[in-house]
Amino acid sequence: MIKIGIVGYGNLGKSVEKAIKESLDMDLVKIFSRRKLDHESYESLDNILAYKEDVDLLILCGSSDKDIMAQGPKLLENFNTLDSFDNHAKIKEYYHMMDEIGKKANKLALISTGWDPGLFSLQRLIGQAILPQGATYTFWGKGVSQGHSAACRAIDGVIDSTQYTIPRDEVLERVRAGEEIEFDPHKAHLREVFVVAEENADKGKIEEAIKTMPDYFVGYETIVHFISQEELNKDHKEMVHGGYVFRNGMASGSTRSVIEFSLDLKNNPDFTAACDIAYARAAYALKKEGKKGAITVLDVAPKYLSFKSYEDLIDSI
Amino acid sequence: MIKIGIVGYGNLGKSVEKAIKESLDMDLVKIFSRRKLDHESYESLDNILAYKEDVDLLILCGSSDKDIMAQGPKLLENFNTLDSFDNHAKIKEYYHMMDEIGKKANKLALISTGWDPGLFSLQRLIGQAILPQGATYTFWGKGVSQGHSAACRAIDGVIDSTQYTIPRDEVLERVRAGEEIEFDPHKAHLREVFVVAEENADKGKIEEAIKTMPDYFVGYETIVHFISQEELNKDHKEMVHGGYVFRNGMASGSTRSVIEFSLDLKNNPDFTAACDIAYARAAYALKKEGKKGAITVLDVAPKYLSFKSYEDLIDSI
Repeated sequence: MIKIGIVGYGNLGKSVEKAIKESLDMDLVKIFSRRKLDHESYESLDNILAYKEDVDLLILCGSSDKDIMAQGPKLLENFNTLDSFDNHAKIKEYYHMMDEIGKKANKLALISTGWDPGLFSLQRLIGQAILPQGATYTFWGKGVSQGHSAACRAIDGVIDSTQYTIPRDEVLERVRAGEEIEFDPHKAHLREVFVVAEENADKGKIEEAIKTMPDYFVGYETIVHFISQEELNKDHKEMVHGGYVFRNGMASGSTRSVIEFSLDLKNNPDFTAACDIAYARAAYALKKEGKKGAITVLDVAPKYLSFKSYEDLIDSI
Repeated sequence: MIKIGIVGYGNLGKSVEKAIKESLDMDLVKIFSRRKLDHESYESLDNILAYKEDVDLLILCGSSDKDIMAQGPKLLENFNTLDSFDNHAKIKEYYHMMDEIGKKANKLALISTGWDPGLFSLQRLIGQAILPQGATYTFWGKGVSQGHSAACRAIDGVIDSTQYTIPRDEVLERVRAGEEIEFDPHKAHLREVFVVAEENADKGKIEEAIKTMPDYFVGYETIVHFISQEELNKDHKEMVHGGYVFRNGMASGSTRSVIEFSLDLKNNPDFTAACDIAYARAAYALKKEGKKGAITVLDVAPKYLSFKSYEDLIDSI
């Protein structure tokens, strides 16, 4: 059994807990958290070093910038770690930091698992390697963006909000048909926002504030709906997500091929956790083989993800 | 530069030749063939041992049962090899044979690359590892089956023929919607055959012979069209193919997720060759790291497929 510790108990931590319970080859040791939890497996993060010998691997479930960037390096000095660090702009910096520490401490950090980065990174790499002459397209959604939803909630007069990122069918279909198009994420997606406003709020002003919000909404077609809290709770509280990775290119230099990978997820953190668990199994196996430092999904041979024996795997290859 | 020898010069061998020419990190040494070729790179297969020191890896492009099953073990005694051995029922036997020889000879055989087995095997494994509670569905097509086309050409009165395997939209859509269905390949696909018949042939009899052909057509809905040779040549001589792998299951034990991977290929051998080339790069790198015996796509960490440096890869992870 692989003995897992969870660090952080938000949405992802809760999903990882469920995933461990479903896994026949894993045991949950403790859930480490800064804030006290009413949970039989709770342990204060301050006491984590006492579990050094009891944990094979920690799964870091905090937020990338606020938590993991600081926690990862410290924890790696005493534990093997896995995280879904997803700030693309900082992955390289984080990788090198973790690689150095892991090599010194003889520990392994598998970083940036999940679906993007993670499975999508894998598919982008495979597509590019097989069709070096071509173009890669990533679409996100239809799915809830927590960041955009929160940004809308911060607007004066907004009580609650859910924002969907939605790929534009007409762009998706052109890519799927094998066209190589000039790809602008702003034109390939639209944004749909469901807003619960205060009773006397100026809805026109809220809509304007959303549509002109820099970085988040400027440049996108954005549709704003005002609905009641009841409706929002009923229809827009699921953390659905997904997306598409396409590689369109010339096979063997001459014939057009389209490789498509897509995810349709009822619950984003549950699926991210499911990815984490498969990669936790791989990290455990690779550590046993002597690997240390930092690695990513690009370093993991697929066989390590499965709990089946290699004989069973090639039986149904 | 990775020095490649091609063994066999049918459709796949020709596509591999094109793919090597497009690869910046590979050189073609010779095309080895039993039959004399009018080609500047031709060399008789009988003389292949003379090239032992000049070739880093042989790509075996013959047919699985007739050629590779016999050639692979012999060639592996003196060369590293890669093949697209695709007789699923015999892969395990072939694997063990190659593994033993490779380990003795200090050579590496990467077997069964391509797209099925190959990329599809990869996707099936990844899907199962991430969603252990679920079901895997593979659809083939729309694509030309060389085996079925040849089987039709063998019927009395048939001059030429092209057979398409076609996934049924209604089954595909149910799977894509996340349903877990009872999957019968016979009911998930239909077969469409374009036949050029001899002038006085009994078309009813030919159609009957096709539809009742055991193993190939019995159990499938099959549509037969009689057309002229000109039409067949104009519209049905492209080796289009593709397919779909789905994994539908419960992420973290509780929420439904759909993972879809699909290929839409203008030319089947060109794409298989493009896969072979990326995996040839991986085999070369793994051999350098000391790997020997037999391996499959399940043993290959994705980073080895690319000619980019690891630093570049994580830059765009």
